[in-house]
Amino acid sequence: MLNFNKTKDGLLPAIVQDYKTLEILMLAYFNETAWQMTLKTGKAHYWSRSRNALWLKGETSGHVQLIHAILVDCDGDTVVFQVEQLGDAACHTGHRSCFFRKVVGEALVTVGEKVFDPESVYGK
Amino acid sequence: MLNFNKTKDGLLPAIVQDYKTLEILMLAYFNETAWQMTLKTGKAHYWSRSRNALWLKGETSGHVQLIHAILVDCDGDTVVFQVEQLGDAACHTGHRSCFFRKVVGEALVTVGEKVFDPESVYGK
Repeated sequence: MLNFNKTKDGLLPAIVQDYKTLEILMLAYFNETAWQMTLKTGKAHYWSRSRNALWLKGETSGHVQLIHAILVDCDGDTVVFQVEQLGDAACHTGHRSCFFRKVVGEALVTVGEKVFDPESVYGK
Repeated sequence: MLNFNKTKDGLLPAIVQDYKTLEILMLAYFNETAWQMTLKTGKAHYWSRSRNALWLKGETSGHVQLIHAILVDCDGDTVVFQVEQLGDAACHTGHRSCFFRKVVGEALVTVGEKVFDPESVYGK
């Protein structure tokens, strides 16, 4: 169904989108194990490139992503996860979406909503 | 503004979204040259990994993507291009979106709209 041989590291990108509003929440990478876990559990799993480990999104924050639909692209090397974002925030900064900044001329302007305080969720 | 050193090849992913409907149209990669050309011209430019060349999206089909807004993620290594898709189709298969297939059990089911016939646009 997917072409995990497309990249050397076997990782493919998943675009994560709110299933109702269609807002793009984040982009993360997954390998075949994470893909199988996502299909099996109905909760988005990724491969953390920084921790080099399987990552159930929300395992620390509780902000799990419940899968409503998965779309696959023409090449079979990118997917869209349409999810219900528990806790209303996908970004570790506390913003609803990781894409909370907009290019305005030469600057980045914060336009996205901050939903929680990261320190209270992740500790210091 | 962006961290082009994040990856070895200097390529970052751009998620392309219809600026009105918020439908996700495609994902493509860009380098610093393509980024500068996008900002300068207001038309989405990418780096073609298959052709290893700068790529003005729509240069063959005429299906140019006019930039309405650019969002940048928390890490500065992924962007969202909110675009007006000329020709109403982003995918080289003739579908409006590259994500025209949905996972249903063990199968992929076509759910996306086909807008043009690729042979008539690109030739055989």
